[in-house]
Amino acid sequence: MEKNEPAVPGEPNFTAHEVKVLNAGFVRLVDWMGSDVDIVRAARVSYQAAWRAGKDEGSDAKLIRSLIKRGHTSPFEHVVLKFDVRAPIFVFRQWHRHRVWSYSEASARYSELDMGFYEPERENIGAQSMTEKQGRVTENWAPENATMNATAVQSIIRDHNSVAQRTYRQLLEMGVARELARVVLPVSAYSQMFGTVSLHNLFNFIRLRSDSHAQYEIRVYSDAMLKLAKHVAPIAVQEFINKNWPEGDNPE
Amino acid sequence: MEKNEPAVPGEPNFTAHEVKVLNAGFVRLVDWMGSDVDIVRAARVSYQAAWRAGKDEGSDAKLIRSLIKRGHTSPFEHVVLKFDVRAPIFVFRQWHRHRVWSYSEASARYSELDMGFYEPERENIGAQSMTEKQGRVTENWAPENATMNATAVQSIIRDHNSVAQRTYRQLLEMGVARELARVVLPVSAYSQMFGTVSLHNLFNFIRLRSDSHAQYEIRVYSDAMLKLAKHVAPIAVQEFINKNWPEGDNPE
Amino acid sequence: MEKNEPAVPGEPNFTAHEVKVLNAGFVRLVDWMGSDVDIVRAARVSYQAAWRAGKDEGSDAKLIRSLIKRGHTSPFEHVVLKFDVRAPIFVFRQWHRHRVWSYSEASARYSELDMGFYEPERENIGAQSMTEKQGRVTENWAPENATMNATAVQSIIRDHNSVAQRTYRQLLEMGVARELARVVLPVSAYSQMFGTVSLHNLFNFIRLRSDSHAQYEIRVYSDAMLKLAKHVAPIAVQEFINKNWPEGDNPE
Amino acid sequence: MEKNEPAVPGEPNFTAHEVKVLNAGFVRLVDWMGSDVDIVRAARVSYQAAWRAGKDEGSDAKLIRSLIKRGHTSPFEHVVLKFDVRAPIFVFRQWHRHRVWSYSEASARYSELDMGFYEPERENIGAQSMTEKQGRVTENWAPENATMNATAVQSIIRDHNSVAQRTYRQLLEMGVARELARVVLPVSAYSQMFGTVSLHNLFNFIRLRSDSHAQYEIRVYSDAMLKLAKHVAPIAVQEFINKNWPEGDNPE
Repeated sequence: MEKNEPAVPGEPNFTAHEVKVLNAGFVRLVDWMGSDVDIVRAARVSYQAAWRAGKDEGSDAKLIRSLIKRGHTSPFEHVVLKFDVRAPIFVFRQWHRHRVWSYSEASARYSELDMGFYEPERENIGAQSMTEKQGRVTENWAPENATMNATAVQSIIRDHNSVAQRTYRQLLEMGVARELARVVLPVSAYSQMFGTVSLHNLFNFIRLRSDSHAQYEIRVYSDAMLKLAKHVAPIAVQEFINKNWPEGDNPE
Repeated sequence: MEKNEPAVPGEPNFTAHEVKVLNAGFVRLVDWMGSDVDIVRAARVSYQAAWRAGKDEGSDAKLIRSLIKRGHTSPFEHVVLKFDVRAPIFVFRQWHRHRVWSYSEASARYSELDMGFYEPERENIGAQSMTEKQGRVTENWAPENATMNATAVQSIIRDHNSVAQRTYRQLLEMGVARELARVVLPVSAYSQMFGTVSLHNLFNFIRLRSDSHAQYEIRVYSDAMLKLAKHVAPIAVQEFINKNWPEGDNPE
Repeated sequence: MEKNEPAVPGEPNFTAHEVKVLNAGFVRLVDWMGSDVDIVRAARVSYQAAWRAGKDEGSDAKLIRSLIKRGHTSPFEHVVLKFDVRAPIFVFRQWHRHRVWSYSEASARYSELDMGFYEPERENIGAQSMTEKQGRVTENWAPENATMNATAVQSIIRDHNSVAQRTYRQLLEMGVARELARVVLPVSAYSQMFGTVSLHNLFNFIRLRSDSHAQYEIRVYSDAMLKLAKHVAPIAVQEFINKNWPEGDNPE
Repeated sequence: MEKNEPAVPGEPNFTAHEVKVLNAGFVRLVDWMGSDVDIVRAARVSYQAAWRAGKDEGSDAKLIRSLIKRGHTSPFEHVVLKFDVRAPIFVFRQWHRHRVWSYSEASARYSELDMGFYEPERENIGAQSMTEKQGRVTENWAPENATMNATAVQSIIRDHNSVAQRTYRQLLEMGVARELARVVLPVSAYSQMFGTVSLHNLFNFIRLRSDSHAQYEIRVYSDAMLKLAKHVAPIAVQEFINKNWPEGDNPE
């Protein structure tokens, strides 16, 4: 898909660059600047040979591989991607710890938040890992977790979302200020934002968040962005994957 | 109070630099580097007269006033403050949009979150402002808000906090992974973090968050830090207040 | 000019977005992402009305004006500009203090620096200001500067540039490592870089560097970028000028 | 040495934390905040066990090692160091590309720059490497460099520094504005700055600048800061060295 197709929400082809995530989330690549050839040009400015780039694709790929291998990061800062993201609040809480993105998020002070709630799929409901403090075990639960039933957990979360939603509506209908009424919303509530980031900083995000220790619910967003970034800079993204997942167990 | 008193939690004087905030929150100034004299030295290095500083307090105050007036910000970056903060999640959500702080926050993946919930005082419960999209009106509600009763609102929020707490405990007792069980927690739940920031960036935070358009619940944290920063750099903080609240309606 | 014309150096139309600066410098707008409509969309996401944008240009301008007036900066972070800049080292020294740009600069370690030297025009040669520590007076020099002759100053600088150039070449011809030979280069030597920045951060740069207290030699680069940014977001740039130069004494 | 000794320039013990570098440069650790125990506390806040820290040094070292091994960086951001540095302009040019430091540097617009010039020692004068584009060879020069004589190179650089110094003085005595006269100064001229940085970002600096591919003249500053940082957080610095120079070929 070319950049210049009218990627305007509401128009038929807008979702061409969309990946659906979780029960009601998505990541959309809505704009970008630059490509593999711009990475090469930025690297070559350092030895004033910038403009050979784009003539010889073999040497470009070799240069990009070498930049990634040696950790030369500044050329990847001139490629910029803009995403439209819908995710639960607890995912955005982790996301916003990445301080080099630009964020514009829906505000529950300015308008009512009404984008649904996260409900885990049965296969993603898991027990507390006994070996990893932050982990979740979704297969072969130990006997001590025998009381746990994925369907029951799903019901409890779904019911709680409904209760929170009703309480939120009740407060709003009483005339309570939006900024105060929203305190009853659980972190499972979906919100939406634009997030803009350079390819260099996107790689740092993905290295952490597509890692097997990252929480499943943010990992799927990270994996989706890795896939979408291939539209922008396919050579750089492939070399990044080769370096970080050399066994081929890549997160696509 | 001198910096070198043993400001160790659990020891008697730890809370000397603490301000209690909301129903169960606090801000503690737990460490810092630099003072007014360091601002002056950093400014004077630009004309290589750094070391006169500290000899003549009158001229130091005059220099600091001039730096603040003309917007020369880099000298204020060499003074650094470290806070220990307990606040509701919806306050941290706003806080973390400030991307130049260093944050280390409690994780509900690593341990159970059990620090209570925000309950507004009756006098801080207010109606949606009709004139300010993001605002709250706490006095002289218009007749259309007659159905709103602060005591009733308080009860609804308190009851919802209890329900959420019970549901969270229930999921944990079933063995559900902490990172998943926490999705039912409302954004009223308290969390805790260390936040480290330069005086320059603290001023930017306070300018926005002690403003009358900021949400009440973050404004009280911002006001508390302004007060605590006076222990570190009294002249600079006073000049900052004089510039931003010239009418004397300052947020202390 | 449309973005999609082939803005490739060496091709005829590359310099369409170029401003020549000083005796041998330039600023070229080589790529960008976003426009006025994207600022509006990023602002409206906060109240979930993002996609009305672009339908009603009058209301868009009003919203942008309001954002600039109230200092709401995050919507301007989703518009990104990439410049190709040739400037003297002492100008880059000031430029690089702006820490939110992405930079890729020619390296005198990797290749010989051979882009000429800054030579001031006669009308920009001036005396030390007696009233402003950092200033330069180019008109009506006081009698005590009577010994200063702009033509003589110009000759001294030009001759020194030649001497430095010869010494640099001599060291290189002796086989001295490039990274060492370059230490004799004066800060008048030209270098070149790509610089990528959001519109928000470009505005911060221009506010400081197009100010009357900024050094003339960086001011002309700042003024040039202000002019070029109008191709990208004409409404936002005009509102920015209106706010910062209300008397019409704008830096274009 | 304790932090609270009066580390005031001009007083006898100020240079206790100084490392002399190159022919006329230095790095001084002039202030800091935090220590190993603060890294541990920041890490433990994530599981709300912050205050055990400091009781059991063995477990603290183990935790710090684990943080470094797994790349958990935020706890290292709460330890902050402030350096006073005198270095040649070409070294500061590389230094300032690190955008997460706070810098306050002497300005040649505000005062005359008069701190001497870099002159390489004979053993650091080297030929252009034929195998590394950015490298310098100081031993066993190939025959094609036979014309190069370290003593001659030293003389050429020293003489050029003198010429530049005289030209600079001449322009100043003619009354030329300082900001313009300085354009004849070579990048070998020394300047001075305060630089403030978190331990996390200092580690990033040292990883790049104490590397064998870094230019010798910045490497010595990087190595000096590594040594000085041991006064602040000895365990963390040792674990950092162990990870990055596992063969014991560390840059101290």
